[in-house]
Amino acid sequence: MGVTLEELKKKMADFAKERDWDQFHSPRNLLLALVGEVGELSEVFQWKGEVPRGLPDWEEEEKQHLGEELSDVLLYLIRLSDVCGIDLGKAVLRKLELNALKYPVNLCRGSSKKLKHIHNSTTATATSTSCITNESENGVANNGV
Amino acid sequence: MGVTLEELKKKMADFAKERDWDQFHSPRNLLLALVGEVGELSEVFQWKGEVPRGLPDWEEEEKQHLGEELSDVLLYLIRLSDVCGIDLGKAVLRKLELNALKYPVNLCRGSSKKLKHIHNSTTATATSTSCITNESENGVANNGV
Amino acid sequence: MGVTLEELKKKMADFAKERDWDQFHSPRNLLLALVGEVGELSEVFQWKGEVPRGLPDWEEEEKQHLGEELSDVLLYLIRLSDVCGIDLGKAVLRKLELNALKYPVNLCRGSSKKLKHIHNSTTATATSTSCITNESENGVANNGV
Amino acid sequence: MGVTLEELKKKMADFAKERDWDQFHSPRNLLLALVGEVGELSEVFQWKGEVPRGLPDWEEEEKQHLGEELSDVLLYLIRLSDVCGIDLGKAVLRKLELNALKYPVNLCRGSSKKLKHIHNSTTATATSTSCITNESENGVANNGV
Repeated sequence: MGVTLEELKKKMADFAKERDWDQFHSPRNLLLALVGEVGELSEVFQWKGEVPRGLPDWEEEEKQHLGEELSDVLLYLIRLSDVCGIDLGKAVLRKLELNALKYPVNLCRGSSKKLKHIHNSTTATATSTSCITNESENGVANNGV
Repeated sequence: MGVTLEELKKKMADFAKERDWDQFHSPRNLLLALVGEVGELSEVFQWKGEVPRGLPDWEEEEKQHLGEELSDVLLYLIRLSDVCGIDLGKAVLRKLELNALKYPVNLCRGSSKKLKHIHNSTTATATSTSCITNESENGVANNGV
Repeated sequence: MGVTLEELKKKMADFAKERDWDQFHSPRNLLLALVGEVGELSEVFQWKGEVPRGLPDWEEEEKQHLGEELSDVLLYLIRLSDVCGIDLGKAVLRKLELNALKYPVNLCRGSSKKLKHIHNSTTATATSTSCITNESENGVANNGV
Repeated sequence: MGVTLEELKKKMADFAKERDWDQFHSPRNLLLALVGEVGELSEVFQWKGEVPRGLPDWEEEEKQHLGEELSDVLLYLIRLSDVCGIDLGKAVLRKLELNALKYPVNLCRGSSKKLKHIHNSTTATATSTSCITNESENGVANNGV
């Protein structure tokens, strides 16, 4: 049940094709549009200070607006992946596996610490683990996906 | 076929729970982590000038790296939606319907124009249409989702 | 006293020229580089929850790192303005004047409210004021520049 | 001559104080507001494809709008630095010196290459150099500040 990334990709491709918008949907155009939507998403949260999970104090209208901004980011992300020829569904399942290797449960439980890691700009260093115990003097937070 | 947003949400929730990371996954923490990943995604494209669809000149390693950055954005987006109590699958299908109303095919075909529209910061102005003909003097591009 | 935007612009231009980097410094390349640096800035804050002004609990090393990320954003912003032919010093002083008109002291004092305002995508609506009293039912926060 | 970062910091601090907005200007609130403005800046460029330096084809109104968005990013960046207790003018001059060490002219001239570098998340690796000759097989672009 539930909507798949494939279905959303198809809907976006059809939407663009019907409007003859493929001419505008270059990778960097879509990337900048995505950044624009992330900006709008940030605006929803910008003057609120910390907000608790579940947004208990938000009005329904605000939550709906938030859902729209989250959706805009998602739609551009899916469209960007598509025009780049990236199979996002396949990529995300692979990334989840890499994350499981990178953040082993036994080393990462409750840890907000991160090893200085070699940041290789063209490929993930998935074979190195990235959590350390709280005994470490390294105070940099980590809880990444 | 294909992975659903629901499945990814579940996987992310389990991943965080196993590592006792729920304590770190507040809405604004996750939002800033998302912004961080969008930054990494942008770095993939930053010195390349315009790149054609399909990324024909990219090496396999670079495409794989791109897939990882796209995935990181997706995973934080899904996690953020979850901790906010937003049903992203439902929201995105609703947003697609709003977009279809906002950008009617007959008015928007091939148009990169956008009406100055009233930007209501708490709810989408879905009932107003946003494309105009090329005769307009308004040169602001539009092809948004 | 203190460093001017003009001086920083000159330093960046010289830096690029000496390294023959003008060829890479197109507007959109620099914009994406800026987004990348904003991502790195966000990472500094991402797992911290709310942090008080003055960052009393941060170690000196972290503050220095923060200063570097803030600087990277500034340098790309100045460089982007330069290659776009925008006089940032002039623009920012004009924007401060527009903000003073847009947010009058007597209407905006202590107010986190914002009128739904007409968002004109090509020019600021500087003549309309944007604050309202707390009696308003509009709960959208505002304290923008 | 020209406006200094110090002057802009003072103007922003006065602006906030007059409106009793200090209560809203926490570090993460301002950071998210900055991200919002970067989103608006990106929207200016999002559907344009590559644009040449100097923006020769842009109308005056568009350039003015661009100047406003660049200014908004600058103002929030300066304000964020201020409330974090970071002396941005001092930090940026130091960063320029670090960059000069990191990207030596003789190694970086015309090079769009970057060494895989150890990314230390709490301090810059300013003593390591980051450019390599074009003979390198590493195709990752670099021209960073």
